[in-house]
Amino acid sequence: MIFRQLFDSESSTYTYLLADEHTREALLIDPVREQVERDLNLLKELELKLTYVLDTHVHADHVTAAGLLRQRTGARAVASHKGAPCVDVKVRHGDVLQMGEVKVEVLETPGHTDDSVSFRVGKRVFTGDALLVRSAGRTDFQNGNAGQLFDSITGVLFRLPDDTEVYPGHDYKGHTQSSIAEEKRYNARAANREREAFVQLMGNLNLPPPKKLKEAVPANLACGVISPTQTSSPQA
Amino acid sequence: MIFRQLFDSESSTYTYLLADEHTREALLIDPVREQVERDLNLLKELELKLTYVLDTHVHADHVTAAGLLRQRTGARAVASHKGAPCVDVKVRHGDVLQMGEVKVEVLETPGHTDDSVSFRVGKRVFTGDALLVRSAGRTDFQNGNAGQLFDSITGVLFRLPDDTEVYPGHDYKGHTQSSIAEEKRYNARAANREREAFVQLMGNLNLPPPKKLKEAVPANLACGVISPTQTSSPQA
Repeated sequence: MIFRQLFDSESSTYTYLLADEHTREALLIDPVREQVERDLNLLKELELKLTYVLDTHVHADHVTAAGLLRQRTGARAVASHKGAPCVDVKVRHGDVLQMGEVKVEVLETPGHTDDSVSFRVGKRVFTGDALLVRSAGRTDFQNGNAGQLFDSITGVLFRLPDDTEVYPGHDYKGHTQSSIAEEKRYNARAANREREAFVQLMGNLNLPPPKKLKEAVPANLACGVISPTQTSSPQA
Repeated sequence: MIFRQLFDSESSTYTYLLADEHTREALLIDPVREQVERDLNLLKELELKLTYVLDTHVHADHVTAAGLLRQRTGARAVASHKGAPCVDVKVRHGDVLQMGEVKVEVLETPGHTDDSVSFRVGKRVFTGDALLVRSAGRTDFQNGNAGQLFDSITGVLFRLPDDTEVYPGHDYKGHTQSSIAEEKRYNARAANREREAFVQLMGNLNLPPPKKLKEAVPANLACGVISPTQTSSPQA
């Protein structure tokens, strides 16, 4: 399998490219609209055909490239059945997406948002904002729910094998990956904490709203193909 | 082998952690002084003992953490015999550093600076600024020499097996790795270009001096343990 981790420095978002090296089919997880040319160029150089674009959830901090990539390549957009209505393939817990020899298992991991999913591929899991390196996504908007996030982290992700490699949706300190074993021991929000204490902690973070919340969410509900200005008036 | 890629967003520097999972010995390649606490904390969490700190060259854009890490852990600093006099182990082309089952082969790849080396570990090569993703380090200071860099890239690095994974010292567009095959085909500076044309291209880049040149170079010649202010007067 071909695997590449890509970074968008403005939003600190990680995008992942996975491909079957024989069939040359590829998928992107959480591509960022501003990076669409970089990502299309890399696909071309690696002689890959984009088959799927997966979003882990409706993002509030950046606009997805899913819609643009669908227009440019014919790829199908994939996300949770609880998320953006614009996607082509609406997935549920336990669904499997097969692309050549690349097998993607869908794990519903709500709590950061109600539509959050993780994607497990072999020994790797792509956790979006449900589980970050030593952290976890905030739960104070977009139907976030701290109790639900605790259940997703401890009941779904922490039950994966210890040596599962964790690839997060973001990182702000320069980490690129972690493992389930490490997060069970060292996650600053969820490790060694009871559900109630986690809910209390997440309720007291007092973070400012994400800068792009009002433009990113409506844009992402349309797979990123309407401009922020078109969507900002109904929000105002 | 344990492998981690780490990023310093201020200088866009990649630091690499490699460790033998049985002996728990670890080495860091190109650690950044501002990230010393992050890196020490990661070593502690992973229950690793830092044995070596390797620098690919005397950097001009950030200060190495080598000296601080040596003070804090007893690790030995490693770099080219042509580079910083402060290091403990001065290496040459073909030298091998063995750490448990981790075998590091030294490749002299001068041209960005006269002391630039790459480190080959199994199917990975850590190229510092000699070879970047689709690019190559500038050659207009610190005894840089474009002809020499061309010879290092095409005569040393491009002779590695095509599927060798390339891990650069920096990236400014969000790429985290490449391969020798890709760089042979797509490197914007060195691929499909004759030596003379490469020298001409590198001579016409007209880049401003690195912001930290005057403080970073003297600090790095002392493994980063003298403060920039102490070193700035003799430079002025």
